[in-house]
Amino acid sequence: MDQRLKNLISRMHCEELDGLIVNSEANISYLTRHPSRDSRLLVSKKKIVYFTDPRYTEEAKKQLKGISIRNTGSAPPFPTIAQTCRKLRLKRVGFEEKSVSYAEYRCLKKELGKKPALVATSDLIEEMRELKDAQELGRIRKALVITAKTLKFAGKIIKSGAKETEVAARLEEFMRLAGGSGPSFKTIVASGGNSGFPHHIPGARKIGRNDLVLVDLGVDYQGYKSDLTRIFFLGRIKHSAARIYEILLEAQRRAISRVKPGVQISEIDAAARDYISQKGFGPNFSHSLGHGVGRQIHENPKISSKADGILKPGMVLTIEPAIYLPGKFGIRIEDMVLVTKKGYEVLSVSVNK
Amino acid sequence: MDQRLKNLISRMHCEELDGLIVNSEANISYLTRHPSRDSRLLVSKKKIVYFTDPRYTEEAKKQLKGISIRNTGSAPPFPTIAQTCRKLRLKRVGFEEKSVSYAEYRCLKKELGKKPALVATSDLIEEMRELKDAQELGRIRKALVITAKTLKFAGKIIKSGAKETEVAARLEEFMRLAGGSGPSFKTIVASGGNSGFPHHIPGARKIGRNDLVLVDLGVDYQGYKSDLTRIFFLGRIKHSAARIYEILLEAQRRAISRVKPGVQISEIDAAARDYISQKGFGPNFSHSLGHGVGRQIHENPKISSKADGILKPGMVLTIEPAIYLPGKFGIRIEDMVLVTKKGYEVLSVSVNK
Repeated sequence: MDQRLKNLISRMHCEELDGLIVNSEANISYLTRHPSRDSRLLVSKKKIVYFTDPRYTEEAKKQLKGISIRNTGSAPPFPTIAQTCRKLRLKRVGFEEKSVSYAEYRCLKKELGKKPALVATSDLIEEMRELKDAQELGRIRKALVITAKTLKFAGKIIKSGAKETEVAARLEEFMRLAGGSGPSFKTIVASGGNSGFPHHIPGARKIGRNDLVLVDLGVDYQGYKSDLTRIFFLGRIKHSAARIYEILLEAQRRAISRVKPGVQISEIDAAARDYISQKGFGPNFSHSLGHGVGRQIHENPKISSKADGILKPGMVLTIEPAIYLPGKFGIRIEDMVLVTKKGYEVLSVSVNK
Repeated sequence: MDQRLKNLISRMHCEELDGLIVNSEANISYLTRHPSRDSRLLVSKKKIVYFTDPRYTEEAKKQLKGISIRNTGSAPPFPTIAQTCRKLRLKRVGFEEKSVSYAEYRCLKKELGKKPALVATSDLIEEMRELKDAQELGRIRKALVITAKTLKFAGKIIKSGAKETEVAARLEEFMRLAGGSGPSFKTIVASGGNSGFPHHIPGARKIGRNDLVLVDLGVDYQGYKSDLTRIFFLGRIKHSAARIYEILLEAQRRAISRVKPGVQISEIDAAARDYISQKGFGPNFSHSLGHGVGRQIHENPKISSKADGILKPGMVLTIEPAIYLPGKFGIRIEDMVLVTKKGYEVLSVSVNK
């Protein structure tokens, strides 16, 4: 059995669960090392069962070893899953309360009746996914190599007169031709005043001669994601923009230099936020400092002032301080950082700022 | 107040609800005519409130008229939503059980306590969305114009030696440069044996000289989606493939010719399925005939043998009979059809088959 499944089963054991229904695509893909789409996974000591529909059955049979494949047809999968739980004589079955809808829960509860007992679980697999193993890190590094090339290409095509949507389209094509399986989220290209909105949707606006252009993009490489933001300055750089850029570079440097196993996550956020506040822009840094990234673009841990965990080796984080001046412009600088045994490694170090 | 919100409030009235928490992005975007991301909407007669976080607050304030904007910060939105329900003195508040997770439900229930009563609802807004209005149809038609151009372009770039992933990347760029906001799902390019998997993920396979290539793609235009599948034959066409293609054309023709208000949806599926079965390929048509399409790529109604509704004017459907021969090849032909007052209109009629 795959080590990831073994680890999960021992975690389940601590929670006194002899079965777990996995509903989240990212979690199923992590456990099976197969890109799950519209599937469910039942994990138990006795048997691992992958439930899918006719569109994906043949591919799953071909690719998943040591896992039983059940084709649930075009009907909802939960009645079949409940039946399988009973056949395996499971006693306490967990379900992922963050990804199971209330409707699915109701269906499952009804189908299972009183036995086995149904137990809400949270973050069982997400916590395993916080710490990246060598294969995962390799894929994230590969995603970043493609991201670096894409941002270099962005430097060439971002010109006065180009439309935001055109730039976004060309960047997404570039990353795919460079080997990425696609963007890890919709590429943000925000020029001039549009950069003042943290998550602007690219529009028909043409980039102006003296604009700054915020590009926030990521690449998906074999299921693992990157996430970087860079600013491209065209023409004459406003003094105020240059000053804010310098403040953010320093805020980011301060946050990154604190990254080390055992450090409170909220301290990292504070390191950047306090500096930005000192400079008078506290209210303009309106979101948290960053987030974990891996199979999902946002995953554990969240890097915010309220986070209560500590950093551990193997975590991969974004550190993205920002200052938005609505109606004027906004600047965000985002890098990806790995927590190492002794401190940190900036995974995106090769991408010019 | 927008007509869509008025209609919803009268539907809520029938369910004896004075409030509804809308959780689904597609539903929120439909009701507000604004691309919702990570937001929630509270609909009541007294007030409409849009809950969002700092990343989107400024944009929402600028674009949403007659709707109050609440910035819930970086915390989960449900405590604030519960508070607002109490402030508005609501008595029976619905929530969308298909899109609210069990964890969110638990949080909401805990925050609300006994008052207002919390009621699970299902498809209240999805049923409104089944019937497309003029603005929606206009956008779907526009998405299809771009799709037609993209498929024409596909005919030019699908050549022996091209990689599946490259073709997919170039098609997605093309649709965006042609005015689409992006693909409505990950473009499927399945060549040779890969076409035997209904939803193949494009890979590094190079297209062969005598391959058939299945392309299933869609364009998102201002939130509305298209979905078409065409087959490109290269070189020498196998007799068996040509025969199956003809069978599917006829199956599709039979299904489409039955489309008319008042007809049982399952009859449409049967019209295609019976013909395919007659020809001996019943087991090879392993999925349902089609689905509704609009703001979501799969939405109501589902066109399957088990569907129990009837067709109504304004519905937009895909009709996509298919035959898969695992290990050999697969063929699917997919068009989009509008149910009109008297019958049907094939929306994708201009796209060659």
